[in-house]
Amino acid sequence: MRSAGAEEASRWLHYGLTSNDIVDTAQALLVGQASELIENGIAGLAEVLERRAFEFKDTVQIGRTHGIHAEPITFGLKLALWYDELQRNLHRFREASLEMRVGKISGAVGTFGHIGPEAEERICARLHLEPAPIASQVISRDRHAHYLSALALIAATLEKIALEIRHLQRTEVREAEEPFAPGQKGSSAMPHKRNPVTCEQICGLARVVRSNLQAAFEDIPLWHERDISHSSVERIILPDSTILVDYMLAKTQWLISGLRISAARMQQNVELTKGLIFSGQLLLDLSAAGMLREDAYKVVQGHAMESWESGIGFQAAIEADPEVRKYLNQNQIAESFSVRRYLIHVDRIFQRVFRTTTAY
Amino acid sequence: MRSAGAEEASRWLHYGLTSNDIVDTAQALLVGQASELIENGIAGLAEVLERRAFEFKDTVQIGRTHGIHAEPITFGLKLALWYDELQRNLHRFREASLEMRVGKISGAVGTFGHIGPEAEERICARLHLEPAPIASQVISRDRHAHYLSALALIAATLEKIALEIRHLQRTEVREAEEPFAPGQKGSSAMPHKRNPVTCEQICGLARVVRSNLQAAFEDIPLWHERDISHSSVERIILPDSTILVDYMLAKTQWLISGLRISAARMQQNVELTKGLIFSGQLLLDLSAAGMLREDAYKVVQGHAMESWESGIGFQAAIEADPEVRKYLNQNQIAESFSVRRYLIHVDRIFQRVFRTTTAY
Amino acid sequence: MRSAGAEEASRWLHYGLTSNDIVDTAQALLVGQASELIENGIAGLAEVLERRAFEFKDTVQIGRTHGIHAEPITFGLKLALWYDELQRNLHRFREASLEMRVGKISGAVGTFGHIGPEAEERICARLHLEPAPIASQVISRDRHAHYLSALALIAATLEKIALEIRHLQRTEVREAEEPFAPGQKGSSAMPHKRNPVTCEQICGLARVVRSNLQAAFEDIPLWHERDISHSSVERIILPDSTILVDYMLAKTQWLISGLRISAARMQQNVELTKGLIFSGQLLLDLSAAGMLREDAYKVVQGHAMESWESGIGFQAAIEADPEVRKYLNQNQIAESFSVRRYLIHVDRIFQRVFRTTTAY
Amino acid sequence: MRSAGAEEASRWLHYGLTSNDIVDTAQALLVGQASELIENGIAGLAEVLERRAFEFKDTVQIGRTHGIHAEPITFGLKLALWYDELQRNLHRFREASLEMRVGKISGAVGTFGHIGPEAEERICARLHLEPAPIASQVISRDRHAHYLSALALIAATLEKIALEIRHLQRTEVREAEEPFAPGQKGSSAMPHKRNPVTCEQICGLARVVRSNLQAAFEDIPLWHERDISHSSVERIILPDSTILVDYMLAKTQWLISGLRISAARMQQNVELTKGLIFSGQLLLDLSAAGMLREDAYKVVQGHAMESWESGIGFQAAIEADPEVRKYLNQNQIAESFSVRRYLIHVDRIFQRVFRTTTAY
Repeated sequence: MRSAGAEEASRWLHYGLTSNDIVDTAQALLVGQASELIENGIAGLAEVLERRAFEFKDTVQIGRTHGIHAEPITFGLKLALWYDELQRNLHRFREASLEMRVGKISGAVGTFGHIGPEAEERICARLHLEPAPIASQVISRDRHAHYLSALALIAATLEKIALEIRHLQRTEVREAEEPFAPGQKGSSAMPHKRNPVTCEQICGLARVVRSNLQAAFEDIPLWHERDISHSSVERIILPDSTILVDYMLAKTQWLISGLRISAARMQQNVELTKGLIFSGQLLLDLSAAGMLREDAYKVVQGHAMESWESGIGFQAAIEADPEVRKYLNQNQIAESFSVRRYLIHVDRIFQRVFRTTTAY
Repeated sequence: MRSAGAEEASRWLHYGLTSNDIVDTAQALLVGQASELIENGIAGLAEVLERRAFEFKDTVQIGRTHGIHAEPITFGLKLALWYDELQRNLHRFREASLEMRVGKISGAVGTFGHIGPEAEERICARLHLEPAPIASQVISRDRHAHYLSALALIAATLEKIALEIRHLQRTEVREAEEPFAPGQKGSSAMPHKRNPVTCEQICGLARVVRSNLQAAFEDIPLWHERDISHSSVERIILPDSTILVDYMLAKTQWLISGLRISAARMQQNVELTKGLIFSGQLLLDLSAAGMLREDAYKVVQGHAMESWESGIGFQAAIEADPEVRKYLNQNQIAESFSVRRYLIHVDRIFQRVFRTTTAY
Repeated sequence: MRSAGAEEASRWLHYGLTSNDIVDTAQALLVGQASELIENGIAGLAEVLERRAFEFKDTVQIGRTHGIHAEPITFGLKLALWYDELQRNLHRFREASLEMRVGKISGAVGTFGHIGPEAEERICARLHLEPAPIASQVISRDRHAHYLSALALIAATLEKIALEIRHLQRTEVREAEEPFAPGQKGSSAMPHKRNPVTCEQICGLARVVRSNLQAAFEDIPLWHERDISHSSVERIILPDSTILVDYMLAKTQWLISGLRISAARMQQNVELTKGLIFSGQLLLDLSAAGMLREDAYKVVQGHAMESWESGIGFQAAIEADPEVRKYLNQNQIAESFSVRRYLIHVDRIFQRVFRTTTAY
Repeated sequence: MRSAGAEEASRWLHYGLTSNDIVDTAQALLVGQASELIENGIAGLAEVLERRAFEFKDTVQIGRTHGIHAEPITFGLKLALWYDELQRNLHRFREASLEMRVGKISGAVGTFGHIGPEAEERICARLHLEPAPIASQVISRDRHAHYLSALALIAATLEKIALEIRHLQRTEVREAEEPFAPGQKGSSAMPHKRNPVTCEQICGLARVVRSNLQAAFEDIPLWHERDISHSSVERIILPDSTILVDYMLAKTQWLISGLRISAARMQQNVELTKGLIFSGQLLLDLSAAGMLREDAYKVVQGHAMESWESGIGFQAAIEADPEVRKYLNQNQIAESFSVRRYLIHVDRIFQRVFRTTTAY
């Protein structure tokens, strides 16, 4: 990247442009190239997310809130949600990138003191840049901070994905696993130990990108027609942040693409609480069948708490409760404990997220 | 704001919605109301900036880079640049606000387990919200971080404006002054002392809004279908940041609206270096007149340095230099020291910034 | 707090002090009071951590790295590590608080222009403050940023504690649980659902305190003998951060004090991998018994991978392997799979952490 | 640095240590070396600050608050204040560095599962490190965040110094100037233009170091006995922050050492307001001489405002006011306008700051 910019710059010097004009306009070109790579990275990841979302559209998994089992979902829904978030990031990043596609050939204080606006317009057109409508010695740095915030948002979404996989790879959960090459060694001390190190790395790097954003905001209020304090900052945070996000996107694509999923473990974990996750549905069904909500709550909570503490099956206890059986028969109780009822709208959600018809 | 949301919420409970759905959807309404106030604030400030930009379109002022006198600008250009930056912020803020105008009535883990998507769509339509295409227990928090970043960008632009006025109000500069009520007392110890305290406050508060952004980013990667760690954060940073930005916009509007400008001091400061600021133009003119650039540079720098150190008038020294006079006559030298030449494109820049014809 | 400061301030005005001197010196008193509360909070939490550390000194738990089971630890070790970290925070906070215990009665620009240094020394002595050796109009703000960083460090340690408990309370882990009052209701939808909401709140608030730190650092480089930009910042971040940390300390003390621990679940989780966690020790024992390390690694990894994938008991497979039995007999293998061997140094670690003999 | 660490590490592998132990302990050695360089940098800068503080101890300069002229100070006082702040930073940095001088050879989860504490103690002693009293797989990361905060505090003080010089080098102020080599070229467009680019760079880099701190705080709450998310962060922020601070210290030492001061300009600026800066003292003297404070305030403010707006000399106007002359004669008025009275405590302040007798 650097050498292409330098070459371009040397060509410009022949036209008599000042160094400030060249630096900012060259930066726009470099950022433009970086943005293209990042857009491609987002598109590549989105494609993989979509493919795997449809693959696991109906793979039942327990939904967890506060780390506690709540109600069933499907693993495909998780992937679809990430896809949806990534689409927003794509839109934001495009908007922010566009703001960076501006050149500036307006001289030492932005007045076109020595070369007129026509030259700026002509040069920018040649470079596929928009001329900044107005500038001081430099292009306003709100554009750069906005760009960095779009990068930090992408990084945070990747962190969210990586964090989820770390959770799912826990020894107690084991529903998903980072790709692991057949010949790859595990931990040297513990041969079986496969650690989600790529996910952990993505989480860490998101912190770095997010931190850089802070410095980018401090660059906005420069003195008068410019001071150069932003320059040393940008030499660090612009390459670092674009390169890191590009790397993180590639890693996440690799991660999702090769992610090992155990549908069997997901099913086991759905059943881990022996029916407790259906207590909310049971409550509604009892009320609908005529039981007073207060009474229903007391009965359900009683069995639920006992089952939680003792490990006794919740569904069995409910079936054996004569008070319950006044309102619900065996089939109706089975219906209350049915995963299927929770998932009848999955297709509808997928239609919302993946609006256009796809080949899957 | 809070009571309106509470009332709305209680109405919803009659429909059997869960608390999480209500909280997030009510938040969308509250943020929507706050966003309207802030958009109005931006519009109000933009109007004032535009009016005063045209008022000072031709008021000559020295342009400064690195805090050092560079080339002439007009004070109207500064205001126009702020207007331009504010328009970008308006666009960004609208985009980010739109992302916050989503409701979510999809139950404990986002599957519409107990109430179908139609209810969500109907309720959201009534509330002028879009239904989130997909959600977990909560609406994804990337939207909130994006919203906070748009607020922090506004705050940074206001900081930039306030910082500039603080610079212009310095005792040595005295080109601008914060509005000062006739009866208002100055410093108690020094009766004449008028401090740009509102500008300083705006600079300080921008730091706070910018800091809040950091916490908003950390809220994105929640666990699984949600953990509630974001809630305590948002209870602080959402009201604080929206209220602060609303306040800062109002203060900046007051500031720009009543800003006291001394065109006389601006003119004095343009002349402060006794012509040194024209050395760049002189260099070009000497070269154009046939002097070797190396020679021109040596002559100009020699007089410039001597003038800078001794305080002797630079223009006078140039006029008296026989080497210079070989290439430029009295009139031509006067032309080299003409402010007018720097400002011939001001109208063109104004046309670029204020694209549509205005009444001014 | 505020009224005490105001009263003190009005008394000072009688002595003819300027408002800047009063504000900064009063702030020192207020921060001093807040610091005392926070120090007490740290001490209270440390006491509880120490007590419970000794209570669970020998309660075996699986150690986890990367979220994957590694080698056994005891739960007491976790508590002891938090205690150790908290002691560092106590030391840091005391140092930072001391730096804030300075007064300043040196006039508009710190020169004692109208009242001499003796008055400052006398007044400070009366208020149990040190006079700042040198000041501008205000006390230098590096002290404040340092103080905020000490608060943010405390908050981060509390976040670390809260995060760990959230992990241990996961449905799949269930080794620990936030205190839960007998009459307290669970989730309204799912009666049995107990969520670690206090822990999640602590994690969220740590983000806020950490964010405030950023603003505190930006307050350091004020203009010349002071600008007032720091004031609006401090009015928000100083009370917010001290109050939040005080609250978080109290909540964490409540949390640790009433934390519900299941030693049975901890034991079950130690056994969850059916012996895999001892593979590292087995490897060492086989090598010590004469097997080539490469061979030992191949044998151990083979059984380990098979056990991990299939769920077959690892220890049983090892016992049945004739290659292994050439080097280790039944008793020696049992010794390789012994938790006890990992924990022989726990007392020594406790002695290091709780240096002085305690009553436990 | 890196190769020294690698060599040390390979020696350790012979003792059978695990990689985690080596990485953290090697990091302690590397950070120790970096800390030494930084401590030397602080000492070097402190020496220069002290020398120049005494050089300019009595060089009168106007004190500015809010950017507005307030009361006289000396330039030496500014330098002494920076020295004082730097001493605090030295103390903090030493404390934070000490916390990083800990090693850790306690195995995969910190239990000394395979090698006992004696080995750790022996190895650490050899390396001049303290053994961490307790650790998980890694040394607790609160130490690292503390270390980064000490670095960010140093950076902020350097930023404060650099910002002040940028202010003093402004064309309208011209009291100080960055060192400028005789042969060094100014701006290419404007030969006389000397920009404080080193100061601006220091201001920018302080933002970067401060940003890195944010990531360091997020590294504290790792999962259980460790996750590796901190590692990618530290590979960036630890070398970057230490190298940047080392560089900034060296640059600031160069800056202060060669700083060009114009005592003449300082004097001119003291006189810029034609006596207005003495209005506070005059007020006190009139009151002391028996004039009612309300009357004195009215008279002083009247002349002050007129002088401020019109540029008429304030002292002259006061001398000509018959109301004033009832209370103060010519000599007494001269005394009110005496710079000397403001500076009688400068030596005392220097004694406070530079406690031990020095050669200057």
